[in-house]
Amino acid sequence: MAFLQSPALSSASKLRVAFLGPLGSFSHEAAVASFGSEALLLPQSSFHDAFAAIQSNSADYAAIPLENSSNGAVVQTYDLLADREKLYGDITICGEYYLAVHHCLLVKQSGNKSSLGVPKDITTDARYKSITKLYTHPQAWGQCEKFLSKHFKGVERQDVSSTSKAAEIVSQETDGHGAAIANKFAAEYHKLDILAQNIEDNPENTTRFLLLRNKKAQNTAQCNREPRQSLGKPKHKTLMSFIVDHNSPGSLADALVIFKQHGMNLTTINSRPSGIHPWQYVFFVECQPTSETWSDDLMDNVIEDLKAVTKSSRHLGSWSDALGSK
Amino acid sequence: MAFLQSPALSSASKLRVAFLGPLGSFSHEAAVASFGSEALLLPQSSFHDAFAAIQSNSADYAAIPLENSSNGAVVQTYDLLADREKLYGDITICGEYYLAVHHCLLVKQSGNKSSLGVPKDITTDARYKSITKLYTHPQAWGQCEKFLSKHFKGVERQDVSSTSKAAEIVSQETDGHGAAIANKFAAEYHKLDILAQNIEDNPENTTRFLLLRNKKAQNTAQCNREPRQSLGKPKHKTLMSFIVDHNSPGSLADALVIFKQHGMNLTTINSRPSGIHPWQYVFFVECQPTSETWSDDLMDNVIEDLKAVTKSSRHLGSWSDALGSK
Repeated sequence: MAFLQSPALSSASKLRVAFLGPLGSFSHEAAVASFGSEALLLPQSSFHDAFAAIQSNSADYAAIPLENSSNGAVVQTYDLLADREKLYGDITICGEYYLAVHHCLLVKQSGNKSSLGVPKDITTDARYKSITKLYTHPQAWGQCEKFLSKHFKGVERQDVSSTSKAAEIVSQETDGHGAAIANKFAAEYHKLDILAQNIEDNPENTTRFLLLRNKKAQNTAQCNREPRQSLGKPKHKTLMSFIVDHNSPGSLADALVIFKQHGMNLTTINSRPSGIHPWQYVFFVECQPTSETWSDDLMDNVIEDLKAVTKSSRHLGSWSDALGSK
Repeated sequence: MAFLQSPALSSASKLRVAFLGPLGSFSHEAAVASFGSEALLLPQSSFHDAFAAIQSNSADYAAIPLENSSNGAVVQTYDLLADREKLYGDITICGEYYLAVHHCLLVKQSGNKSSLGVPKDITTDARYKSITKLYTHPQAWGQCEKFLSKHFKGVERQDVSSTSKAAEIVSQETDGHGAAIANKFAAEYHKLDILAQNIEDNPENTTRFLLLRNKKAQNTAQCNREPRQSLGKPKHKTLMSFIVDHNSPGSLADALVIFKQHGMNLTTINSRPSGIHPWQYVFFVECQPTSETWSDDLMDNVIEDLKAVTKSSRHLGSWSDALGSK
């Protein structure tokens, strides 16, 4: 796992990466995994702040969750991509990262421990019995229900604002009877022992992050990687948004047909309120080219044709498929 | 406004209507507005319980929120409609109701009041000044931001689990210095004074409810109303769900084309995780016929054609458009 660095170590040449804080969060883990431990990490207090950091060029990249394999779309991210107030016109998607959501049970450090961070001197079962209070983000309880009902039935649970915050609270306790549910990253950052790992019910639970950049910034232009060639599969992904006239029946179908006409396969569709009229939507279409032939003009042509059947449309970015290339 | 009734008054002939409680909630308001004050009201502790009540025939109808004009889809409702565990095969949508989300500022009742419930004996401004603590659901703070920042800057705010719960707390206070943000329905139910009404920032904020029934129940079959004829507009709405093979590029577009082939206009599309494979989705397509000619066979034909390009599909119901007929 990559180690964290202090902002004091930053230099002008380092990549500046924005993500939703606090440090030790899953977003932090995704940022380091995507941009390396040498990057200057810029934790933000909201998704909006991360978008603003890219638009104003005060960060080079941002890693923002778009969807979770179990819970679905992160609507705050879609709403920022909808850009209803036209604040983020220079932001483009340049990549993606799939982060496996693995939870651990974390306790205060013991001096004598194994390489996994599990203390050797007493049994794990004895350590479980000494725990009288558990801390985590409300969503994590449901994600670890089997483990918790087996080992911690009836133990007091305290909701906190993030899994990283749970780890921080346990690290500052003096009695040593608390435990946090958080990721390995938080264990490392808050110097806690990992008493159990992969305690989540669903081992496939994964969050997909978008990597964002400012399309006018020269120093990040290389993030638009060429598609990787493997097994003959198309390796580009594209996200488009558009709003159709809600009084014009058939215009949604007409807009979707245009993708096929340009050789783009629809992979998923989402919708959010347009913010203009009630029951009018902004649609988000993700698509991939049917052939491996890719040119940057392709999406310009799609946008040109969409103009005839939509009120507005935007190419939010094209990037290499990180899932297909695994 | 319709008055509430006690379950003790119920009789076998009364319609039994399930909705998400507690009493005095916006769902309660939608249930009474849709089925009348004579219905037997059955508040449920979760959306899941409301669905189960319809499937088991322990309720005749349910009123369940599907989307809000500002916040978008209610994902819990879409997940229950996806019916991943095949628990709700007999549930069908038979109607819809649009509820305007109007918030009020509610305080303990004064003996001397106007017909609107606003006390006459002291000025509203003096009543505002006497309030030292506000209660409501976390979402409502943001929906009433302008009013609150004008009149209640710096006043203590307490989050509670529902707007109706906020009204209940204020009704039980003894010092009279608390106020709740909730709907007129909660004011009536908890016998509170309305000190200000329509305090929401966005007067157009509306929640759309689906009305559900069990398709095997004879006593509710008449809920499948004939389409109303007005201004030549098509008046049927239909919701369909389907899952496409995520390894078969183009199948999503192929499925969407089928709607057009059968004369159905797509009005909106949503997606949720399928629960089968990560990054496979269940799509929800809402559509309306392009002509006024409607037959119940139409959707059977769509389903038949969808079989060729989807892994599964379901007609979730067809009903009369409540928005177009306003």
